Amino acid sequence: MKKIGIIGTGLIGGSFALALKQTGKYRIFVRDNNPEHLNQAIAMGLADGELRERICSELDGVILAVPVNVLPDIAEEFLNKTKEHTWIFDTGSIKSNLARRLKNHPARKRFVLSHPIAGTEYSGPKAAVPGLFQGKINIICNPGETDKKMLDKVVKLHEELGMTNYFLQADEHDKHIAYVSHLSHVSSFILGKTVMDVEENEQNIFLMAGSGFASTVRLAKSSPETWTPIFLHNKEALLKVLKAYIDNLNIFVDLLEKDREEEIKNLLANINKIGKIIDGIK
Amino acid sequence: MKKIGIIGTGLIGGSFALALKQTGKYRIFVRDNNPEHLNQAIAMGLADGELRERICSELDGVILAVPVNVLPDIAEEFLNKTKEHTWIFDTGSIKSNLARRLKNHPARKRFVLSHPIAGTEYSGPKAAVPGLFQGKINIICNPGETDKKMLDKVVKLHEELGMTNYFLQADEHDKHIAYVSHLSHVSSFILGKTVMDVEENEQNIFLMAGSGFASTVRLAKSSPETWTPIFLHNKEALLKVLKAYIDNLNIFVDLLEKDREEEIKNLLANINKIGKIIDGIK
Repeated sequence: MKKIGIIGTGLIGGSFALALKQTGKYRIFVRDNNPEHLNQAIAMGLADGELRERICSELDGVILAVPVNVLPDIAEEFLNKTKEHTWIFDTGSIKSNLARRLKNHPARKRFVLSHPIAGTEYSGPKAAVPGLFQGKINIICNPGETDKKMLDKVVKLHEELGMTNYFLQADEHDKHIAYVSHLSHVSSFILGKTVMDVEENEQNIFLMAGSGFASTVRLAKSSPETWTPIFLHNKEALLKVLKAYIDNLNIFVDLLEKDREEEIKNLLANINKIGKIIDGIK
Repeated sequence: MKKIGIIGTGLIGGSFALALKQTGKYRIFVRDNNPEHLNQAIAMGLADGELRERICSELDGVILAVPVNVLPDIAEEFLNKTKEHTWIFDTGSIKSNLARRLKNHPARKRFVLSHPIAGTEYSGPKAAVPGLFQGKINIICNPGETDKKMLDKVVKLHEELGMTNYFLQADEHDKHIAYVSHLSHVSSFILGKTVMDVEENEQNIFLMAGSGFASTVRLAKSSPETWTPIFLHNKEALLKVLKAYIDNLNIFVDLLEKDREEEIKNLLANINKIGKIIDGIK
């Protein structure tokens, strides 16, 4: 049985733990700076035990599933205290800052910058689900900076959980992910805020909310501890995207104010083409 | 068997047809100004036949499931050509314009302003699903303007399909629905546009899109024929809501530009409270 350390027992770390344990090939040791989550994870059987210092040198691999603001320090810590045979990958939603921080680390070649495109709006160990990664995409950044054998092991582990790996440069990853993930989270949070602001005075407004509303504000339930550092660390790309979004909203407001029926209809018909793209997303 | 006429064989009209036919108590006759949809609906067995003029006087009830721009004319047409025993209800997403138009019609008491809070992002007869209304809310506006017996029949028909009816004034309905439905549709359409604009140059961006993105842009697949008139006819309320949304987005941009970590975290944590509200939506 291979020994894997997982740092962070939330939605992502917990789901890796469950999925790996289901294969029957791994023993899982976990660490979490939240003692309640740690105890919950072990009580739930997500892990075989707590990751104690003395086990670190025996680990085959380490998965870092912590918020992106604390990730670089923890990445360095584990590159320092694990042995030459140990691979390490993170699961963070942004990659450039970590790539820069680790660039000159003597053990950089044992690290894989990795981002599984999988998640839900829930958080903590109880949010973990074993099939979270099945059929999903995993993005690996700057693969040339990792030792080929270490990279292969991490690629195969993701394949074992049903994922397909793609390779991308870290700065490209961060620029694109602002569009297809971070913007969705901001739009959803702010949509939630806008409706809650009025709801304070209008108690029965949510009676009228249907599945469309639920779908667009689903991500407003996401964890502030996870998402605040993501937004701040991908600030430059996210601001660019948010300004484009606000510009497009203002264009729509202008069309609406001027009763430009045909232009609005053409705009919406054009946007409809996104349907075939969305239908391909799992 | 009761005879029901359904005008419009799209998602909503088609789903009413299927649900009513499943009860075994209704014969359904349909009309659609799109001949392809009409033939499709009949071929699919959504209806027992086309609604011909001579059947109109025999109908027990009429359901109007047409875009809100053509709805007032069609509502008047059917109030004029059906008999005293025939109830009529619409299913439109806005109510004030129709309420005003019908206010002084001599047969106003046979009409129920009705809005089932149910739907999907798909359109046309093929989008119809028999269980669409099961467990959902139906909003009936200005119930005092309808004859009590007619109102009871329409209320019971919705209950028969598994819905719970609520009563509201038309102007209140339109104001609230802008927040919990129309805003979601605009935010989703414009999110889709923003991402598609950049995708023209970046072909592989959608590789990185996960379920969160799919959820927030799902409504961008909605029909322009349905939604353009809704947006335009609820323009005043929608503009107010859209401006509040853009203001809140600009506040977020400002917090992000100034790296206000604690304020962003508190904002998101506050918005998280919407979770328990969303969880109650079916």
